[in-house]
Amino acid sequence: MSWFGLFGSEKKSSASQAKERLQILISHERHNRSGPDFLPELQREILQVVKKYVSISDDQVSIRLDRQGDSSILELNVILPEN
Amino acid sequence: MSWFGLFGSEKKSSASQAKERLQILISHERHNRSGPDFLPELQREILQVVKKYVSISDDQVSIRLDRQGDSSILELNVILPEN
Repeated sequence: MSWFGLFGSEKKSSASQAKERLQILISHERHNRSGPDFLPELQREILQVVKKYVSISDDQVSIRLDRQGDSSILELNVILPEN
Repeated sequence: MSWFGLFGSEKKSSASQAKERLQILISHERHNRSGPDFLPELQREILQVVKKYVSISDDQVSIRLDRQGDSSILELNVILPEN
C-alpha cells in the first residue's frame, strides 16, 4: 500500500499546504515492557540529525507522543523554511 | 486521528507479530524541487541513532523509499531482538 494519501490527508485544509514539509512517524511496538522507553531520547537525537540537513528552529517543529497499549507513536511535524 | 491501526494493519499476518518492532516513516513534501534530496543521508544517520538505543544489525532493517510527485516517503522497519 501507499502512505502518500495517508500523510497528505490530514493537512488538506492547512494554510501550510504550499510549504515544504517533513513528517517523521516513529512507531514502537513492545511486547516485553521491561525495557526502557527510549522514544523521548530518540526524538531529541533525530531532531538533531534533521537540523544538520535543514535549518529549522524548535518552534517550527510540533511533536506528539501517543501511547496505547503496547504501542507508542511519536509524530514529528516540521514546516521547512523557504529557501 | 490515530496512527495505531495504521501501523498495525500491514503486519497482522506476519509471523513477527509477537516481536518488538520499531517502524520509522519519514515523509518529505517538496514544492520547490531545487533543493537536494537529503532522505538517503537522513536514513543513514537515523539508523545510526537507533543503533545507539537498540542492538540491531543491518539485516534486521528493511528500508523502502517511495517517490511520487513532490513527495518522498522513506520507511524503515526494524524487528528488535528479544532481550
